[in-house]
Order: sequence, then C-alpha cells, then structure tokens
Amino acid sequence: MAIEKPQKIEKINVLSAANSFSELFHYLKVGQLNDHMLNIVQAKDRMLDFHTHEESDEMFYVIEGKMQIEFQDRVVDLSQGDFIIVPKGVLHRPICKSLVKTLLIEKVGTLTKDNTGGTYKK
Amino acid sequence: MAIEKPQKIEKINVLSAANSFSELFHYLKVGQLNDHMLNIVQAKDRMLDFHTHEESDEMFYVIEGKMQIEFQDRVVDLSQGDFIIVPKGVLHRPICKSLVKTLLIEKVGTLTKDNTGGTYKK
Repeated sequence: MAIEKPQKIEKINVLSAANSFSELFHYLKVGQLNDHMLNIVQAKDRMLDFHTHEESDEMFYVIEGKMQIEFQDRVVDLSQGDFIIVPKGVLHRPICKSLVKTLLIEKVGTLTKDNTGGTYKK
Repeated sequence: MAIEKPQKIEKINVLSAANSFSELFHYLKVGQLNDHMLNIVQAKDRMLDFHTHEESDEMFYVIEGKMQIEFQDRVVDLSQGDFIIVPKGVLHRPICKSLVKTLLIEKVGTLTKDNTGGTYKK
C-alpha cells in the first residue's frame, strides 16, 4: 500500500484542528507517523458495532468531551486527555453519547467503511 | 527486537501520568501502539544536540507547557495541544527552556542514550 507522506513539516494543534470543521464522523487526516495515520473525528449519538482490527492496534485520544470504549467484559470511560490503546484482534466498539473530539492513531488501511459506520471514505 | 505488549488494556490520562513523577528527562513508558512506543517526558533548561532518527518518524505532543523544535532552517514553537511529526532522517533538536510535559511516539528502538542527552535508559 502506498504511504502518503506529509509534504511539509508543520505543527498541528489538536483542538484547533478539531474545531476547524463541524461535520460529525468525518475523518480529518492530520498527520502520518511512519505507517500510522492520525485522524481527528468528532462524534455524537453514535455507537458502532463491535469489531476488531486484525492488523493494527488502535489508539483513541480524547481531545475534548467524553466517550466510552466497550469491550466484551467492561466499558471504559474516557475524558479529556485520556487515551486507550485497543490491541489488534480485541473486540471493541466506541460509544459516543455527547459530542466528543478524538484523535485516532492506527496503521494505514485499518479504517474501513465497515468498521466506521460507513463514514470512512478512503 | 522483542516488542513488549501491555499486560492490560487500561486508559491513561496524559496529564495525570506526567504529574505522577517529577524527575526531569525520565522516560515514562505509557503505552505501545504496534511497534511504536509512547513515553512521557518532562524537560526544562535543556537543548539536545542536532540529530536524526534514520529508522523512524518521531512525534512530539505537548501535554503542558511550551517547547521548541529546531530544524536546520527554522524553529517551531509548540504549546499545549500542539504536535509535530519529525520525519525520519530530518535533522532536528528539541529546545526546552521552561518546564514542558510531552508525549513522544516513535518506533521501539529509536531512542538511545546518544539522542536523548544520555537519559534514555533502555
């Protein structure tokens, strides 16, 4: 898979980037770290189906707001400044009740329409 | 190289983790994302030598405080919530004047005593 590299080395403020658009469930790519991509997503009133990523761990970082990650045996509450890394192969789903602004990091190719509720476009 | 995996899936609050220790230039490993490690570092009155990482991009995220990344042609100021990804092979050095709490992400094996001012212990 072709790996896009950023054209320019520039700083990004995660909150400013999240506030630069208002569309829910839109994945704004804000960087690439080796073979991992960084996307900012805003979500609300959303609970995805349980799913796994077989080829990559997945990091959720909460920029602003609250969300939950549900596993088979428990629910983890995440607030501003919290992150969690879901290991590859582990069944999980995000639950976003109120508006949350998140940074996601996982390997390029991990996100698909199927595991994002149809909203990941690439 | 052996990749340590976290024993348990747990959330981490980056500011709480940074505030859980006071030692400067200590790398607190807070997670692993595939072959990348996450470390929290506090620094102050520190300017490393220019260096490159030939095998990995490097991400600096400012949890609290301010720092600078100097490149050959410019200096980038980073404040709370800012991140920058330094591509592999690009000459750079962090400059930390006042106290800054940062999250670093790069491939396992990237940090060495040589490129951390002697403070990375593993």
